[in-house]
Amino acid sequence: MEDRKISKAVITRLPRYFRYLSDLNDKGIEKISSKQLSILMNATASQIRQDLNTFGDFGLQGYGYNVRYLKNEIAKVMGIDEINNMVLVGAGNLGQALLRYSGFNKKQFIFNAIFDAVPTTIKLPMNYKEGTQKFEVQPIDELNMYLETHDIDIIVLTVPKVAAQEIVNKITKKGIGIWNFASTDLEVNKGVVVENVHLSESLMRLSYNLKKGRN
Amino acid sequence: MEDRKISKAVITRLPRYFRYLSDLNDKGIEKISSKQLSILMNATASQIRQDLNTFGDFGLQGYGYNVRYLKNEIAKVMGIDEINNMVLVGAGNLGQALLRYSGFNKKQFIFNAIFDAVPTTIKLPMNYKEGTQKFEVQPIDELNMYLETHDIDIIVLTVPKVAAQEIVNKITKKGIGIWNFASTDLEVNKGVVVENVHLSESLMRLSYNLKKGRN
Repeated sequence: MEDRKISKAVITRLPRYFRYLSDLNDKGIEKISSKQLSILMNATASQIRQDLNTFGDFGLQGYGYNVRYLKNEIAKVMGIDEINNMVLVGAGNLGQALLRYSGFNKKQFIFNAIFDAVPTTIKLPMNYKEGTQKFEVQPIDELNMYLETHDIDIIVLTVPKVAAQEIVNKITKKGIGIWNFASTDLEVNKGVVVENVHLSESLMRLSYNLKKGRN
Repeated sequence: MEDRKISKAVITRLPRYFRYLSDLNDKGIEKISSKQLSILMNATASQIRQDLNTFGDFGLQGYGYNVRYLKNEIAKVMGIDEINNMVLVGAGNLGQALLRYSGFNKKQFIFNAIFDAVPTTIKLPMNYKEGTQKFEVQPIDELNMYLETHDIDIIVLTVPKVAAQEIVNKITKKGIGIWNFASTDLEVNKGVVVENVHLSESLMRLSYNLKKGRN
């Protein structure tokens, strides 16, 4: 897989393939044709064949795709076959919701520590991995040292937008990802990757498309 | 504004313009040149001029843009100058976090009611609009009747993916938007607009981009 080039457009669609294939796999379905997958995913069969050919020729005519194999290959490409160690920065409502969120695989995406500007006032009973755990929220001033001394892949950033950039400025670690929920565009050092979830922009798009449809 | 055509690409960028202009307006800044805005937004000045020309010729050479006026025009186009009445469907962690979320304008996007499969067990003290309010969570079976008898624009859907489609199937109201946080692609009737926030796909994209950057 390593030296195969995958286009950016395919990459954008991979998480959706992964989601559908995971659902099929959970239902015990072992194989699926590009036709069936295209109906399910509301795409054309040729688009699906073209996208999935990136992963080799195992989607054979008359056989279809091996669901589990394809899911696992996509997981490898996406880097989610490995553990992603995360820290939460910002233990407000949204941060706490993400700690308890069951929509992503808790065995692959693991919260290791929580940081907040007001560490002493918050303790979180969390239901994650196996069983419920209590986490002590650590002072945000200790974040950078923690990152330098622990094997962390992803910072989940759920602080107010006014605080976000200052926190990011202090991070010296390279090769880290920021899942940014703060409603601001972050400036980051080389080697830091940002994925934005701009909720208010999403809500505005919905508002626009709704009103446009009404006119 | 009504009869001016705005390209889909521009629409996609509008929320970001709105965010920057709102920040500038909050800081008391009255005008800004396309050059300054381009530096701030990390875009080219010509892109910005081209996008904002959609809103008329008030970005005059040597004057720049009137921040408040432009912000308000974009708000009109996006439909966020009017009130958007919302209901929350799914009062779990994520739903409750969105109720309390301060990232979008609480005067424009107002929660009117909350529905959940287990209505009796949850009461929410909410800090929204002016002051704290308690909301009684209503049984989900009453959602459709509520929608038919109230002036609701947006359903914020934060239920597990297995429950999402069934809830949507029961909705008979037209001209409504669904802000979908359930990790599934919804099939909806005509006149229903969906905006997805697929958190797990976003996290997978981050994982991929991070690992790609490391190799």
